[in-house]
Amino acid sequence: MEQHLADLLPTFDMPPALLGAVQYALAPGGKRLRPMLVLLSAEAVGGVRDDAMDAAAAIELVHNFSLVHDDLPAMDDDSMRRGRPTLHVQSGEAMAILAGDMMLSLAFEVLNRNVDPERASRLTRELAQATGCMIGGQVLDTVGSEWTDSAAALEAIHRRKTGALIRACCRMGGICGSADDRQFEALTQYGESIGLMFQIVDDLLDVTRSSEEIGKTAGKDVEAGKLTYPGLYGIAASRQAVESLRESAERAAGSLGGAARPLTELADRLATRTR
Amino acid sequence: MEQHLADLLPTFDMPPALLGAVQYALAPGGKRLRPMLVLLSAEAVGGVRDDAMDAAAAIELVHNFSLVHDDLPAMDDDSMRRGRPTLHVQSGEAMAILAGDMMLSLAFEVLNRNVDPERASRLTRELAQATGCMIGGQVLDTVGSEWTDSAAALEAIHRRKTGALIRACCRMGGICGSADDRQFEALTQYGESIGLMFQIVDDLLDVTRSSEEIGKTAGKDVEAGKLTYPGLYGIAASRQAVESLRESAERAAGSLGGAARPLTELADRLATRTR
Repeated sequence: MEQHLADLLPTFDMPPALLGAVQYALAPGGKRLRPMLVLLSAEAVGGVRDDAMDAAAAIELVHNFSLVHDDLPAMDDDSMRRGRPTLHVQSGEAMAILAGDMMLSLAFEVLNRNVDPERASRLTRELAQATGCMIGGQVLDTVGSEWTDSAAALEAIHRRKTGALIRACCRMGGICGSADDRQFEALTQYGESIGLMFQIVDDLLDVTRSSEEIGKTAGKDVEAGKLTYPGLYGIAASRQAVESLRESAERAAGSLGGAARPLTELADRLATRTR
Repeated sequence: MEQHLADLLPTFDMPPALLGAVQYALAPGGKRLRPMLVLLSAEAVGGVRDDAMDAAAAIELVHNFSLVHDDLPAMDDDSMRRGRPTLHVQSGEAMAILAGDMMLSLAFEVLNRNVDPERASRLTRELAQATGCMIGGQVLDTVGSEWTDSAAALEAIHRRKTGALIRACCRMGGICGSADDRQFEALTQYGESIGLMFQIVDDLLDVTRSSEEIGKTAGKDVEAGKLTYPGLYGIAASRQAVESLRESAERAAGSLGGAARPLTELADRLATRTR
């Protein structure tokens, strides 16, 4: 995947400074969870990895676009990401805005260049819907919302902010692997479960670990007065929610048979991750 | 077109505040040049307007995404647009960043929902390439470039910043109207000519008209020390370039026969516009 991303970027028509900024934002160091999910989901339904590489790259582009924009001073104002200065600290705010825009546009270009049109259009629809959902979540989280019920607000924000794109990873992997309806439904279930689980684990890490350990500024959520799972339900109940979502994810993966074994292992690792 | 855009936006899944920001950015008041080009290009090759409405809306979304981001304080820092406060002045910087992101994402969602997949994928590729090209142009213009030759730099910036998307309007219209190769080539020629012409007229208006007359801050290019056609070649030579590009556009439109008559008239109007 690292190689695929590294080879892919210079094939697009970009001024050198913009290419450099996009490469900086996409440099190794992230978990690459989303592309991994795309590839494993394709394999889980009997597809081959090669057919899902571009879809995986597209999702990673969208994910990193959202990180670059979320880190901006007008948004979360983060100066560190993956142990390095964020892109706007490194290259200035204008470049960070434009490089983010470019990554989003590139994602759709990648999806539509080498795939058969039927699949390309389905993948594009899936990715565009998830991206829109994610941006809506960022609005609720950053700009504020009209919710009066905190529990409903938290669920809506989590589902949108991280859940939608993680769900799309599994569904897009399924499309690349030619999943039948039942398989597609199981991948959707799996994706929804680990999507919410992933965000609860993130919230837990924010309150329980130091910045050095997780590689980005810790304690920011609490400081910013943001809604979080541990903040609303406490640490014990949040850990319980993680456990129950892990089981739900593993049930869905289990229904896909032996080829989905790596998805089960991934759910395990995500439930117990420490960064 | 206004009605189509107004009806389209609420069909997407967005928090009300985000929908409001997108509607504000897309409110009537612009020239709607790009959607008009899509529709007229489809008709010029024998297509019907209805088949091109979604492509026209997608392009207008991308155009307005780029205006909202270009106006941001970290970019051109513009406070007025079409005689109204820019979105970040109206709704804050975070919302302007996110609403711009949303419009870009929506453009690709619109293109892939009701069209046959073959056409949708071709349209998506065309739009994504033009969008990437435009963002690259904004990088050269805002962040600076490595050019030593001003004439080459100016041409590259103009081709990318406005030319690519205007060219894409004509080509996407052609795709929607099922243009044959010769028609597609003529639309491309037409689009390239009026794209460059449009930008030179813009540069001329910036130096010759007041802010009130053109509805946005005038004289900004000169003040910012930006490369412009009149700055580099003088006003008379710029007017001559407009004339010669208008003729080239009209030749291309002429080769398409009577159905392309509105494209010829549009080139005339764009060459002589005063705002």
